[in-house]
Amino acid sequence: MVTAELCHHNLGAEEIVQDGKSYLRRIQCKAQAGKKYILYKYSSIVTGNDDFSDFIGETVKRCHQAKAAGYETLLGRSSEVWENYWAVSDVEIEGDPEGQFALRYSIYQLLIIAPAHSDKLSIPARGLSGQVYKGAIFWDTEIFMLPFFIYTNPSIARNLLMYRCHTLDGARRKAKEYGYQGAFYAWESQETGDDACTHFNITDIFTGRPMRTYFRDKQIHISADIAYAIWQYVTLTGDESLLLDGGAEVILECARFFYSYAYFKPQKNRFELLDVTGPDEYHERFNNNAYTNKMVKHTLRIALDVLDLLKAKYREKYDDLVTRLEFEEDMTNIAEMYSKLYVPEPDRNTKVIEQFDGYHSLEDVSLDELKSRIINKNEYLGGGNGLATNTQILKQADVILMLHLFKNQYDIDTLKVNWDYYEPRTEHGSSLSPCVYALVASEVGYTDYAYKYFLKTSTIDLTGEAKQFVGDLYIGGTHPAANGGSWMSAILGFCGIRGDEDCLYINPRLPEKWNSVKFRIIYKNQRLEIYISKSEVRLTLEKGPDQAVSIKGRKLTAKAGQTIAAAYSA
Amino acid sequence: MVTAELCHHNLGAEEIVQDGKSYLRRIQCKAQAGKKYILYKYSSIVTGNDDFSDFIGETVKRCHQAKAAGYETLLGRSSEVWENYWAVSDVEIEGDPEGQFALRYSIYQLLIIAPAHSDKLSIPARGLSGQVYKGAIFWDTEIFMLPFFIYTNPSIARNLLMYRCHTLDGARRKAKEYGYQGAFYAWESQETGDDACTHFNITDIFTGRPMRTYFRDKQIHISADIAYAIWQYVTLTGDESLLLDGGAEVILECARFFYSYAYFKPQKNRFELLDVTGPDEYHERFNNNAYTNKMVKHTLRIALDVLDLLKAKYREKYDDLVTRLEFEEDMTNIAEMYSKLYVPEPDRNTKVIEQFDGYHSLEDVSLDELKSRIINKNEYLGGGNGLATNTQILKQADVILMLHLFKNQYDIDTLKVNWDYYEPRTEHGSSLSPCVYALVASEVGYTDYAYKYFLKTSTIDLTGEAKQFVGDLYIGGTHPAANGGSWMSAILGFCGIRGDEDCLYINPRLPEKWNSVKFRIIYKNQRLEIYISKSEVRLTLEKGPDQAVSIKGRKLTAKAGQTIAAAYSA
Repeated sequence: MVTAELCHHNLGAEEIVQDGKSYLRRIQCKAQAGKKYILYKYSSIVTGNDDFSDFIGETVKRCHQAKAAGYETLLGRSSEVWENYWAVSDVEIEGDPEGQFALRYSIYQLLIIAPAHSDKLSIPARGLSGQVYKGAIFWDTEIFMLPFFIYTNPSIARNLLMYRCHTLDGARRKAKEYGYQGAFYAWESQETGDDACTHFNITDIFTGRPMRTYFRDKQIHISADIAYAIWQYVTLTGDESLLLDGGAEVILECARFFYSYAYFKPQKNRFELLDVTGPDEYHERFNNNAYTNKMVKHTLRIALDVLDLLKAKYREKYDDLVTRLEFEEDMTNIAEMYSKLYVPEPDRNTKVIEQFDGYHSLEDVSLDELKSRIINKNEYLGGGNGLATNTQILKQADVILMLHLFKNQYDIDTLKVNWDYYEPRTEHGSSLSPCVYALVASEVGYTDYAYKYFLKTSTIDLTGEAKQFVGDLYIGGTHPAANGGSWMSAILGFCGIRGDEDCLYINPRLPEKWNSVKFRIIYKNQRLEIYISKSEVRLTLEKGPDQAVSIKGRKLTAKAGQTIAAAYSA
Repeated sequence: MVTAELCHHNLGAEEIVQDGKSYLRRIQCKAQAGKKYILYKYSSIVTGNDDFSDFIGETVKRCHQAKAAGYETLLGRSSEVWENYWAVSDVEIEGDPEGQFALRYSIYQLLIIAPAHSDKLSIPARGLSGQVYKGAIFWDTEIFMLPFFIYTNPSIARNLLMYRCHTLDGARRKAKEYGYQGAFYAWESQETGDDACTHFNITDIFTGRPMRTYFRDKQIHISADIAYAIWQYVTLTGDESLLLDGGAEVILECARFFYSYAYFKPQKNRFELLDVTGPDEYHERFNNNAYTNKMVKHTLRIALDVLDLLKAKYREKYDDLVTRLEFEEDMTNIAEMYSKLYVPEPDRNTKVIEQFDGYHSLEDVSLDELKSRIINKNEYLGGGNGLATNTQILKQADVILMLHLFKNQYDIDTLKVNWDYYEPRTEHGSSLSPCVYALVASEVGYTDYAYKYFLKTSTIDLTGEAKQFVGDLYIGGTHPAANGGSWMSAILGFCGIRGDEDCLYINPRLPEKWNSVKFRIIYKNQRLEIYISKSEVRLTLEKGPDQAVSIKGRKLTAKAGQTIAAAYSA
């Protein structure tokens, strides 16, 4: 990374001074009382990932261009960019200034950090300022931030996913390192896709010793999250070019990884996924995590669908991939595994889905009781001897996240029963957790809970109450995933937006305070303006072709330039 | 358990006094100076496991019988019993009084604790006096004590194994508890076969909290150890009645358990045993532990052989078992698993056998370095955050024990290379460890090491240097497995005794100090007296039929009443 700066002033003598590792620019000036001085400083930051052959030259050039254009022109251009951003991204809430402020703050955080200019970058889990996570990319991007970009700025969403295509070789290296095939995406992905996470990721606060954790080697769901996200992008935008530009290869390699990871249990005639860590990282190394198994099964399905799609529409690409990846036998294996992979189902009586094999036999302690056992406020609750490890207390939404992502496959009662079961057992030790509870709470009609969790996720970097320590390690940084969660809670949750390959569903359940909300989304390459009050949905489709819409279960057809108004009762 | 006591005296008034929970017998006596008083106290202990219908009546009766016989008669009978014991069990060493004393002490410990009178008992891992292990039975009996009894007192060996037949239902319950089939024998077996071990078997010394350990749920090798031991007994004694009296059923149920535990890896076309703990308990929850996989494969082989044997010679028993256990399908499954179960092999270049998948990628730290990291002298080195857990430091012999048990299947160089590799990495945190290193050291010609480890195992309860704490828990008690290890180190190690179904092998390598050694063993129901000096083996077979013997590789035939003398060079 290089930074260039140009100063524009006529104040006095200027010199460059070295102070240790710093170079300081010193400008002398005799200031006169009552006189106004203006100092313009033009700077430009360019990195080797930014698609310029001479990126050092580029940054210098940009500074000169900036200086030539001058401050006022640049300010104008910046305003224009931001106006364009807000025009597609803003959500206007009537009746809730606090929620409005927090949501706009969240959207702003996502926009300032989005790689609009390069498809070799993604968004680090702790924003631009978090040190501990080394600027690395987590599944936070695909599952928590991506929906915002898919619905408001699909080209940025595409860039984020192209980062995974460009780093496929890193995921291949990781799979190989652990003796697997295909693509095992990193928990903390670097520019190359290699994993920045160590096997000793936390310090034991009682002994000061490095603690063996399994973030790196057991969170196999990351590969499934990426396959899911690519497929979501293709489904909601209709843009299949991503598949041709690397997306299909990523999906196939993820599916292949899962086949190489899985074991078959002859006695039960099923494949299982053993010794994994799901989103709830307080419980490492368990078998058949519901979230993981469901996501992996979905990945296998996507891989088979992608193969069908390529074969039917992009035969050359299909032949290239199958030949180059030597994928002939894998197709059979993946189909076999798809048909026999075990996914934990809702219990026949209670409808509760067990988070993993044996979860229900862990100590069923209340969160208060667990907290009363804490000796050191910064002690890590997971790991080998953590307080939560052998209890049912979760770090974050796990089954509930699965239910959110596949909500159309489960009945409302299952969602409700599981929300009731897992919510009191969730410690929310991850900033990814509250928005998921907000989303499913909206779904089952717990609007007050949904609003509480919406505010929690939206204000995470405003209140300063977020958890900042793991063991005695200060993490710091902002929380882009929670920012994405804020938007999701509002638009996918309260407004009830859900798209599939054919239809856009709108199923609003506004929180009490919200009189109305207005926003735009892009779906299947078309812009829609949506207004929702407590009794009405109004929807305007900007241009054609016709678009199937379902408002509170009523199927309608939106036509270009036309506004649909549908009354509903909450 | 009940204790009866009778006092025989004419001292004076006697009364029974209750003191809290104790009943005290108080005898008043005015003693005259210079006069000798003798007080005889006859007591008898009988338990509900001792095969008497009225065991309370029995113990009272026995006291009266003892009193009627009187002290001198009883002393005479006791001496007779002990003379008979020593006549078959003693090992006379010339040239090493220290080793002689320690070995006789070990043999004595084994004899006082052996259930000669009941086949419903076995020998607790910490003798009669250890409190923590609750008098429970461990694999210590089968792998470390049994050889002494098989070779010197087969009826006691039979009793010990019958205990496992009688407790088969407990092992079945444990299998079922964890979702498996067949017999999962307990780590700490109670009278019923149920496991006395908890899931939180150790206290974390830094937090005072119970620590989750996997002794109970992951040491699947116990079932294999028992199958191995039963088969050893049948092979070395020729007594197949044990199989008919429950032994065959135990073996079949153990094999069935392993099939239900195993997973198949389609990609590698092999069965694997995942997430287990081998003898080295510092490393819990690893895949494909060499010792475990080898023992399980052996169990499957034994099960198939037992079925063949029963089918050929005991057809009724065969039909009964196959029908009653519904074993038809299992036979096919077990044969399939036997042919495809993965067992870690010696590395093609180094000949080192990796203890489990990924062992070689753990930190390769020296024992001294590891010990320098210890903060609290009683801290547990295994478990979730133990100091040894993520290093190659072992609690006890693991691969080396496997090489001892299957020594005839590996070349001497493999034994030597692995001894060289694992010995410096072994902490001997278990009293089962030294004798195994002694045994394999003898095998590869490291006689000085063998002697050092022989003394270590033989003197364990004489020096007071044995490890007595796990975490902050005092264990206490004696070490019968080390006592058995003492006999094994001397007879199977230095004297090089090994029997199979056809022949008794004698391959001596006496330690420097030992001029000669004389002992008796029983093999195939025949008594042999063996004398070994540094240059000669003399062997006398008590009665017929003829017996094939191999002395230092020379095949000979021993005939009844005849002494063979064979010179050899050390």
